[in-house]
Amino acid sequence: MQAKLTIDLDAICKNWRALDALSGQTVETAAVIKADAYGLGADVVGPALKTAGVKTFFVAQAEEGVVLRQAIGAGPRIFNFSGLMAGDAAALAEYDVIPVLNSAEQIAAFTGGPCAVQFDTGMNRLGMEPADAARLRDEITALAPELILSHLACADEPAHKMNAAQLAEFVAMTASFPKIKKSLSATGGVLLGGDFHFDITRPGIGLYGGLPFENAAPVVQLDLPVIQTREVKTGETVGYGNSWTAQKPSKIATVSGGYADGILRSAASASLFADDIACPVIGRISMDLITVDVSGLETVPPMLSLLNSVQTVDVLAGHAGTIGYEILTGLGARYKRRYIGGS
Amino acid sequence: MQAKLTIDLDAICKNWRALDALSGQTVETAAVIKADAYGLGADVVGPALKTAGVKTFFVAQAEEGVVLRQAIGAGPRIFNFSGLMAGDAAALAEYDVIPVLNSAEQIAAFTGGPCAVQFDTGMNRLGMEPADAARLRDEITALAPELILSHLACADEPAHKMNAAQLAEFVAMTASFPKIKKSLSATGGVLLGGDFHFDITRPGIGLYGGLPFENAAPVVQLDLPVIQTREVKTGETVGYGNSWTAQKPSKIATVSGGYADGILRSAASASLFADDIACPVIGRISMDLITVDVSGLETVPPMLSLLNSVQTVDVLAGHAGTIGYEILTGLGARYKRRYIGGS
Repeated sequence: MQAKLTIDLDAICKNWRALDALSGQTVETAAVIKADAYGLGADVVGPALKTAGVKTFFVAQAEEGVVLRQAIGAGPRIFNFSGLMAGDAAALAEYDVIPVLNSAEQIAAFTGGPCAVQFDTGMNRLGMEPADAARLRDEITALAPELILSHLACADEPAHKMNAAQLAEFVAMTASFPKIKKSLSATGGVLLGGDFHFDITRPGIGLYGGLPFENAAPVVQLDLPVIQTREVKTGETVGYGNSWTAQKPSKIATVSGGYADGILRSAASASLFADDIACPVIGRISMDLITVDVSGLETVPPMLSLLNSVQTVDVLAGHAGTIGYEILTGLGARYKRRYIGGS
Repeated sequence: MQAKLTIDLDAICKNWRALDALSGQTVETAAVIKADAYGLGADVVGPALKTAGVKTFFVAQAEEGVVLRQAIGAGPRIFNFSGLMAGDAAALAEYDVIPVLNSAEQIAAFTGGPCAVQFDTGMNRLGMEPADAARLRDEITALAPELILSHLACADEPAHKMNAAQLAEFVAMTASFPKIKKSLSATGGVLLGGDFHFDITRPGIGLYGGLPFENAAPVVQLDLPVIQTREVKTGETVGYGNSWTAQKPSKIATVSGGYADGILRSAASASLFADDIACPVIGRISMDLITVDVSGLETVPPMLSLLNSVQTVDVLAGHAGTIGYEILTGLGARYKRRYIGGS
């Protein structure tokens, strides 16, 4: 028996509509579906979002664009954030994936066709520096890119002064390109307000139920099957390194699931849930197994939940010392995936 | 262009032979290949180990047993550690996967055929308690299991008193089953010496180049492609949350790879390597991208290495605050995987 990951496509589409409603009528809301739709399956999430009305998708690598195009068919645009790396050109052309050109080198290597251009407004990760953008103004204009975009470094912190600085830089850098559509904001930027929306927003994490979109509908539920239960006496230890010792007679369940399934080893302070009753993880999370204190349950159900509406991806991330994004993209290959809604 | 994960099948087979050589001629050395061969691909690693001489494999779930049987064909035994969970029986029988019965409930549900039995000697994770094992002695004997096994909780710490305690408990619990073969040790136990070897050892992590097998040959190399490079001035920030600030003029490379590829976000103190020159990761590891200070390089190569013979899985694990096992099993799906050797 495998652990079961339930993915609510209706919730993803609802989150997209809710984020779309936060910007004006003239602003298009795209969908970021890189990293296999943040771990949830681009081949299923893509078609569901297309049906919901998404006309523009973003991926991180040419190979992801190919998979997405095969899933959604012709019609919607697919932009590839990493642009045009060596060996990408043929696949991009064949599968109608639009490169986001990030540097003078990528522009030089580009042989024509639809494209976008990324400007760096201070994150210093992807995109052209202001000096390059100014120097190549005529070449960029001649390319007639469908989009000029940039990315905010601190959008999850609305009060961070970097947001206004990047906004001002983006306005300044794009002033010489009045006819080209512009995009600055992912989920965090959508929530910063209309000044940040420009022509196209491109939410990612918010679609999948994660912060900073506090009003997001939860998208995933993860249920782990119980392999066996046992009684332990006071003083007995459980798990690797004897890292947990029973302080009183306890009932322990061993469930199938572990860090090989993307359940971070650092999340050992989390709980599993029987409905809304928390059963603390005890001892270390191991590769395929987790031990849980189920003393509080009258009967142990066949499965216990690691992700649900109480322990969301962000709550679990808090236990692991990371962010919800890493919980989602880590969701493993051994789960039996069930999609609900989406038709 | 995708990141490239190179997996050395010859090194895996060499590690198996080296671990096999540590036990006596009459001891069989099996191979643990659960969690998709610790992330390296059971469908490729399995056949290579079969060719090297492995006659017994262990997996963690029935579904993994099915995949492995399809890959290796008939012949070698495959044991499933999680035993017999609801719905497993048909697949186990059809694909000749032998359940490791872990509890009185699993024994009661078992309808016959080859099996193994797991005893709990103190880890309190999987396996029958001493009282159950004693009570069910006749039933267990009648099942004629191919193996009685248990698992050490602290084998990575040779001086831990738990090792001797579990050894004594295993000897005591199995004394009533003189004709049944016995197995106590994974990699750590193999290294504890002959008292721990019994009839069959079952190394896992050591095959894949990880601690506690200090003499293991390295198995994996991971190379990430450079998307672009840029110069930053003193005081410029890089990445999410402005978490890195240039202390002097620096050259920064942005590479394709991130926590969506299993490169733990907590590993931000690691380096990438151009041959043996370390280029420190700067700023946060993001979903698909990592930024690196390449100021020390005269020319930036097309790819930089995250895992190599210098920064092994255990060294990278140290940066991430975890163990090499989690680095291996987290290796992501977006890598282009290349296998070398193994014929």
